[in-house]
Amino acid sequence: MTVIVNAAVERHAIPGVVNQTLASAATGLKHLSMWRNVMDPGAATPPHRHDCEEVVLVLSGRGEVHLGGEVVAFGPDCTLVIPPHVDHLIVNTGGEPMVTVAAFSATPVGVTLPDGTAIELPWPT
Amino acid sequence: MTVIVNAAVERHAIPGVVNQTLASAATGLKHLSMWRNVMDPGAATPPHRHDCEEVVLVLSGRGEVHLGGEVVAFGPDCTLVIPPHVDHLIVNTGGEPMVTVAAFSATPVGVTLPDGTAIELPWPT
Repeated sequence: MTVIVNAAVERHAIPGVVNQTLASAATGLKHLSMWRNVMDPGAATPPHRHDCEEVVLVLSGRGEVHLGGEVVAFGPDCTLVIPPHVDHLIVNTGGEPMVTVAAFSATPVGVTLPDGTAIELPWPT
Repeated sequence: MTVIVNAAVERHAIPGVVNQTLASAATGLKHLSMWRNVMDPGAATPPHRHDCEEVVLVLSGRGEVHLGGEVVAFGPDCTLVIPPHVDHLIVNTGGEPMVTVAAFSATPVGVTLPDGTAIELPWPT
């Protein structure tokens, strides 16, 4: 059994986003990954898509999700359901850090830019 | 796209545990489910196992996870990685409600008692 103390989990970053991968292939999983991200005010993910389903629980902060031509604003304590193979991005439109927990139905998680380029994130996916 | 306001998500209960299923087959997913549970002090889940992987993020509270003959204590801000097909239970050993977010690599999630009886939870899995 694995019990992980989250404070000790390694942090990785892309501009404006600090990630901790709480569970993934690196902790023995085959079909499930969970990340916690903290996004700076005004920051955004690049537009991208995954090869699996994603659910994002917004623990704090507020922002917008852009997906499939739609833009939807959200506040704290919302859940975003993001289908596979659809380009999306998340932006922190608030004045506080946005804390999210993302679960994915695969590990590792495939990440692709809109032009089809596969990207390698700096954290275990 | 689906943005869910969690405060509006239906609550279901088993003794000592109130559940909200934030995302599942009921919100269009095929391979991923996310639940939020609030467990009363002193309460415990029945021993059970799943047909899929489970990750439990402990947002607040403290307890023990019993799995495969091991008992491991945990505090707030821990992550539990629970393999498929292994009987386990979680107990709230603290004095406060325990709030957890569980992700599963399937939806619906199969739940089986140690004697092999499949059980039907009162919430969408």
